[in-house]
Amino acid sequence: MNKEQLIKNIKAKKSFLCVGLDPDTSKMPESLKGDLFEFNKRIIDATADYAVAFKPNLAFYESQGLAGYKAFEDTINYIRSHYPDIFIIADAKRGDIGNTSKMYAHSFFEVMDVDALTVAPYMGEDSVTPFLGYDGKWVILLALTSNKGSQDFQFTTDNNGTPLFEKVLTKSQEWGNAGNMMYVVGATQGKMFENVRAIVPHHFLLVPGVGAQGGSLQEVAKYGITKECGLLVNSSRGIIHASKGADFDTVARAKARELQEEMAEILQNYGIIDAK
Amino acid sequence: MNKEQLIKNIKAKKSFLCVGLDPDTSKMPESLKGDLFEFNKRIIDATADYAVAFKPNLAFYESQGLAGYKAFEDTINYIRSHYPDIFIIADAKRGDIGNTSKMYAHSFFEVMDVDALTVAPYMGEDSVTPFLGYDGKWVILLALTSNKGSQDFQFTTDNNGTPLFEKVLTKSQEWGNAGNMMYVVGATQGKMFENVRAIVPHHFLLVPGVGAQGGSLQEVAKYGITKECGLLVNSSRGIIHASKGADFDTVARAKARELQEEMAEILQNYGIIDAK
Repeated sequence: MNKEQLIKNIKAKKSFLCVGLDPDTSKMPESLKGDLFEFNKRIIDATADYAVAFKPNLAFYESQGLAGYKAFEDTINYIRSHYPDIFIIADAKRGDIGNTSKMYAHSFFEVMDVDALTVAPYMGEDSVTPFLGYDGKWVILLALTSNKGSQDFQFTTDNNGTPLFEKVLTKSQEWGNAGNMMYVVGATQGKMFENVRAIVPHHFLLVPGVGAQGGSLQEVAKYGITKECGLLVNSSRGIIHASKGADFDTVARAKARELQEEMAEILQNYGIIDAK
Repeated sequence: MNKEQLIKNIKAKKSFLCVGLDPDTSKMPESLKGDLFEFNKRIIDATADYAVAFKPNLAFYESQGLAGYKAFEDTINYIRSHYPDIFIIADAKRGDIGNTSKMYAHSFFEVMDVDALTVAPYMGEDSVTPFLGYDGKWVILLALTSNKGSQDFQFTTDNNGTPLFEKVLTKSQEWGNAGNMMYVVGATQGKMFENVRAIVPHHFLLVPGVGAQGGSLQEVAKYGITKECGLLVNSSRGIIHASKGADFDTVARAKARELQEEMAEILQNYGIIDAK
């Protein structure tokens, strides 16, 4: 999916919500017997009206072995065939030497046909560029993550006082552009969004950390929104595991709707869509 | 497998060779019809006499979809049941927020039972520590990789002139120790091994980049070896795809043996094993 189509979907749905499909079997109703795909199907059907993107994290599937991997593939295929306007992000945080990244690119963009893949920057240019040669496909590069450990290396400043995450933003623009690259910036990073926007004013940002991790949607919008929106805000646990009961899909729908309504208001307030 | 056992195996086999199981279907003999597991079985049987470790890289399996994932599992199980003294490294370069890394740890150390997993450091402490709670299991953290892109961020120096890879080495010692953590240091990095050894004198290093990528085994030994050896040197393409013909396993065995003989000599020269 290209950038124009994504923006069109955001305006049509009045939402920049990404639902994280990170199903934890210990938080599912017992009746599902840990069936990841069945759980996902019900979450997808319940929340697709309010979301522009879904983001399955591979860890939650790999942890179930072969059956989990199959559930991942089935989930991608289900979204593709039932909700063609959904942007699918494989949250896998890959990145390896050139010939290996090329294999990963083949696997996510050709075998599985997702729209975007999260990639870790530590190994530099040749670990990232193999993902950039696909029309309508995206690299979402880790810049400033939402977790506590983001403090360990991402803020390390060089001789000029530039922190590593800013160097990642700057350097990676030599490899891709706002039409094939996004960045992960955690909602928990607050005013740092200003620093990010000073370097990448037009790129989309994938923003985890609203909800369970404590980030604020209003603050993210205040410092991170652009005139094309430029944000995909993710919520995982706060939506899909809001209820452990048989009503998990109904509750997930209500939670997604709540976020979408807040997002619609933000999109109006910033003049991205017309007021009602 | 714990450190003592690994050292014992190195001395017994007079080898610190790790064979990278990165099967590329385009480089296999046609008779195998792209069957990754069949290819691996023949490589494993042919080279196990000369190797102390095998390292399948997940990318080469994921690129084949579900069948590839099954081949990965079958490969692990085959090594486990036929060669119990082999150290198995899943080269996956994982790393995510705490609750997600925990899932990955479960999947690689409990579902699949490999000995070690490569992990990317960019997300810091809570992305790494969930892998450290398993007895006899290892994190192999990326420090200084073998590829060209290693220049982009890994050498970025902070206010004190310390490059990022050294900061990763230093900081991560607060999380793990020489009994549950190794580091990736590329064979192409030459004299940088001295800098690495100044910070982690006793840790094992996993060294890719000998062979196809151009690194030298003699140089790695010169700057990186310890009195317990402390090295696992990997070769992938240079062994497993040395021949594209039906004789691929025989040729792989010869290539592995060549490296092992060079390693035996090194182990003798540095007094780690007795001379013949």
